[in-house]
Amino acid sequence: MLEGVRLVDHHCHGVVRGPLDRAAFELLATESDRPAPPGCTTLDSQLGFAIRRWCAPLLGLAPHAPAEDYLARRDQLGPAEVNRRLLGAAGVATFLVDTGFRAGDLLTPAELGAAAGASAAEVVRLEAVAERVAEGGVSADGFAAAYADALATATTDAVAVKSVLAYRHGLDIAPEPPTASQVRTAAGRWLRRAEAALPPGPRDGSPGDGSPGDGSPGARGLRLDDPVLLRHVLWAGVQRGLPVQIHTGFGDPDLDLARADPALLTGFLRAVADRDVAIMLLHCYPFHRQAGYLAQVFPHVYLDVGLALNHVGARAPAVLAESLELAPFHQVLYSSDAFGLPELHLLGAALFREALAEVLDGWVAAGRWSGADARRVADMVGAGNAARVYRLGD
Amino acid sequence: MLEGVRLVDHHCHGVVRGPLDRAAFELLATESDRPAPPGCTTLDSQLGFAIRRWCAPLLGLAPHAPAEDYLARRDQLGPAEVNRRLLGAAGVATFLVDTGFRAGDLLTPAELGAAAGASAAEVVRLEAVAERVAEGGVSADGFAAAYADALATATTDAVAVKSVLAYRHGLDIAPEPPTASQVRTAAGRWLRRAEAALPPGPRDGSPGDGSPGDGSPGARGLRLDDPVLLRHVLWAGVQRGLPVQIHTGFGDPDLDLARADPALLTGFLRAVADRDVAIMLLHCYPFHRQAGYLAQVFPHVYLDVGLALNHVGARAPAVLAESLELAPFHQVLYSSDAFGLPELHLLGAALFREALAEVLDGWVAAGRWSGADARRVADMVGAGNAARVYRLGD
Amino acid sequence: MLEGVRLVDHHCHGVVRGPLDRAAFELLATESDRPAPPGCTTLDSQLGFAIRRWCAPLLGLAPHAPAEDYLARRDQLGPAEVNRRLLGAAGVATFLVDTGFRAGDLLTPAELGAAAGASAAEVVRLEAVAERVAEGGVSADGFAAAYADALATATTDAVAVKSVLAYRHGLDIAPEPPTASQVRTAAGRWLRRAEAALPPGPRDGSPGDGSPGDGSPGARGLRLDDPVLLRHVLWAGVQRGLPVQIHTGFGDPDLDLARADPALLTGFLRAVADRDVAIMLLHCYPFHRQAGYLAQVFPHVYLDVGLALNHVGARAPAVLAESLELAPFHQVLYSSDAFGLPELHLLGAALFREALAEVLDGWVAAGRWSGADARRVADMVGAGNAARVYRLGD
Repeated sequence: MLEGVRLVDHHCHGVVRGPLDRAAFELLATESDRPAPPGCTTLDSQLGFAIRRWCAPLLGLAPHAPAEDYLARRDQLGPAEVNRRLLGAAGVATFLVDTGFRAGDLLTPAELGAAAGASAAEVVRLEAVAERVAEGGVSADGFAAAYADALATATTDAVAVKSVLAYRHGLDIAPEPPTASQVRTAAGRWLRRAEAALPPGPRDGSPGDGSPGDGSPGARGLRLDDPVLLRHVLWAGVQRGLPVQIHTGFGDPDLDLARADPALLTGFLRAVADRDVAIMLLHCYPFHRQAGYLAQVFPHVYLDVGLALNHVGARAPAVLAESLELAPFHQVLYSSDAFGLPELHLLGAALFREALAEVLDGWVAAGRWSGADARRVADMVGAGNAARVYRLGD
Repeated sequence: MLEGVRLVDHHCHGVVRGPLDRAAFELLATESDRPAPPGCTTLDSQLGFAIRRWCAPLLGLAPHAPAEDYLARRDQLGPAEVNRRLLGAAGVATFLVDTGFRAGDLLTPAELGAAAGASAAEVVRLEAVAERVAEGGVSADGFAAAYADALATATTDAVAVKSVLAYRHGLDIAPEPPTASQVRTAAGRWLRRAEAALPPGPRDGSPGDGSPGDGSPGARGLRLDDPVLLRHVLWAGVQRGLPVQIHTGFGDPDLDLARADPALLTGFLRAVADRDVAIMLLHCYPFHRQAGYLAQVFPHVYLDVGLALNHVGARAPAVLAESLELAPFHQVLYSSDAFGLPELHLLGAALFREALAEVLDGWVAAGRWSGADARRVADMVGAGNAARVYRLGD
Repeated sequence: MLEGVRLVDHHCHGVVRGPLDRAAFELLATESDRPAPPGCTTLDSQLGFAIRRWCAPLLGLAPHAPAEDYLARRDQLGPAEVNRRLLGAAGVATFLVDTGFRAGDLLTPAELGAAAGASAAEVVRLEAVAERVAEGGVSADGFAAAYADALATATTDAVAVKSVLAYRHGLDIAPEPPTASQVRTAAGRWLRRAEAALPPGPRDGSPGDGSPGDGSPGARGLRLDDPVLLRHVLWAGVQRGLPVQIHTGFGDPDLDLARADPALLTGFLRAVADRDVAIMLLHCYPFHRQAGYLAQVFPHVYLDVGLALNHVGARAPAVLAESLELAPFHQVLYSSDAFGLPELHLLGAALFREALAEVLDGWVAAGRWSGADARRVADMVGAGNAARVYRLGD
């Protein structure tokens, strides 16, 4: 199952260029923005154990080598070699890379692809484009047109756009686009507030200070969190015509999990049903069953359980199996949502392959599925669906 | 386990009388009202794979025969023979049939029973009775009395009533019944709106144009969606004294899944706790654990995971096991929620039997349950609880 | 796994002193406050089956002995001997005992410890302290100071405080503490309402009349259910500096399950993140995945799936495994939430040990975890984390 298949990772980020000390490594191995309690380590987690199991052998250590040994060996090899080994072993044919968060610290999509022996394409974050427009200077009246222009330019070569509405407001939004006048008023309010705040600092933080989910410039700059503008840029993304990725489910502590249930998007999904645009529900946990329902009733809705598989480690088969209940198999995709650590790219792929094989083999062994169907579905979920939706062969 | 037991299907619908082309068959095999994306098929789903596994052999094909072969063989045999084979193999003693949706296209309860060699009784949909009252002509002042009369007449031989509140509004309702004056005002508003709409067309659509969940006449007629009237007919159902079935959890795209969580009914369940009426939470997925809690704390509350077992196919044991966590075993029932396709009647029963046997055998093998308890619970859930609650032997 | 480990039960209650008739026993074996439907028994449940499996042998009967035989044998041995056998077999080193509900019917912490050969410490219920302050007579102006004094006194020897906000209002609260003036107004309103009610009767009911979750004096006295005061006592608990236990997830029928999702506490958890106080999310089911997310992103947040393991019985491994997905392993604890029946203390421990062993052994066997990690995590979750957070060795 999936043995000869090179995956399409339909949502990930770059990896850090330079060396990482233990504290920085630990913060990239959790969705938290705080260290573990005193005397504890974020690596005492499913993700930490999975790193030691899968990645240690790729660095020449025994599986489950102690974290100390692993980090020492990592330092010894250096970032370029570690990146090369782990990225290469992921067996990914194409990375679709969200460049909207801390891009300066990370390998570019082209560099990521080169390190992995893979191709790469860009996913453009809708909110980051708005923040760049505001930083460049724009009036409230001119915001909508300037945003449309900037989005067109930014997405010339992109394969998708992405929304972080879940982090900035919650998915409980009015389903229809705001009116031009509402956008103007909201832009005025937001731009005035931004001017009154501190001048923006450098756009990217140091490697250890955050996690990839949100990617806002935070207190240092213009963070797009106005609900009217968030809806506006989401609808601008729909009008652009590329697949629209929407973060749903868990992530870093900026979000309110109860407001990240993709079922809250039902009205929006109905509103865009006839626009021939694919909506990609990213990650979804612990609401992946809700996402599966949405995929069944709306043929333009897709889902993955990336991010979750990495963080649940040994439980990946259980979570993946839950994502294969209501969703039609042509609407489920693979992603890693890896950020910063090449370990997360490797693990995403390794856990996905192992989990999918375990789940499908079980169904075949019990006579519930045919082997041919299982292989066909594995290919679809691992690569084929993404190639079709993102037109990767075109 | 359950080998000699003939089931009671406490909530299902009739099956289509005539032949079905592939498009119509596909739409009856999903909760969506839209076809799969271009180049894809709704049969690439757990339900599609389960049909090919379980039903193909009953039509004389190998398990997992290709969908094309299956549909060709189905056509060759003709609807009457297909219905006879699949319904008969379900091993159901009694069907409780919701007749409130597209009844004209479907076998009647008596015909369904005859085709299956089983008995059948009727479940009356509360909203459909209101729509018939309105279509017959009624004033706002006369609505409540006319509804009570019509419900009494419609349920003379019925074993239960059913609410589709989840589809028409959501389960987040005020728990108490509306006052007479509120009902009058709401009826006036609804009847005026209905008169202003187009004259109703034929009450039933063509076989392929919908799914069973909602059963509204839609844009063509009087759709009861006023929240006050929905509460009124629900309480009228309570006053009627029969078990009240309430759709909860996933269904067709008319509903908002986040508003279909049965836990939203808590206030209502408290309000009817002393009225000696059983409330049957239908289907519940993915909120079946919430439903299990409600069943534990409220002895008048029952649940099933029908519909879900069909749609999750190979995952039926996992979902069924989750429904057997908090719920007392005398409050869990079997249903298929089959609509249109006899395949869904067969699958409901086959997946339920297989899943229950797998789950209970596992607990017995691990020493967690005794074999005698397992057999007793299987009989209760498969038939005994329904016979008791619906007084089927009386 | 865990074989030589004596557990810390970080949240439980005392057990009943005297004999119990069947009706009283049945009501202590369910979260309901009503008997099972006629002809049915609350012991036809996962909990009932687990009692017969695990406890019958400790009373000298075969596993799965009929409920009648079990209850007869229980009567024959008498409460003291049954308590001694079942509590002793739990293998608990330390009980942290919530004394805020029906304490007069139950063994005190010291008596509980003595019967089990264990140590015991007290958990003080924040709302019960407020109700005692009000019963003792206090003005609206004096309430806040009197409460602070009473809490300091009540917690002199306590290891934790506990909130039943989920039962009295729901977890959907404003995150910040109320102002002094808001507290004064709310106290005046609550105290006037309480005076207008009937004079309080005896504080504790008869053994069979309730379940432990709420512990309110109910209609007979002062029930703290004012949302402002509930927030006030919660923040007073935070200021006290001990770990703050918060009931979340299912419980008795006083609560609204949809408002008991710990994710609703996100704002509050953010607001207390820098106060060096541990927040213990109790029980959590069916929202234990949400709780796991909160534990990952907030290092001051802990969780258990006590109460749930008892009630899901044979499903304990599945539920426990779900609680070990996102949560760091140093933030997961053991509790039984046992109340009234020593069976619940025994079962909590037995099901936890068996479930954890099954889950971790499976991961080790599959090569996902090392054996050494599994043993280390078992010790942490079973005892070490609680010892650290509650400073039990100090």
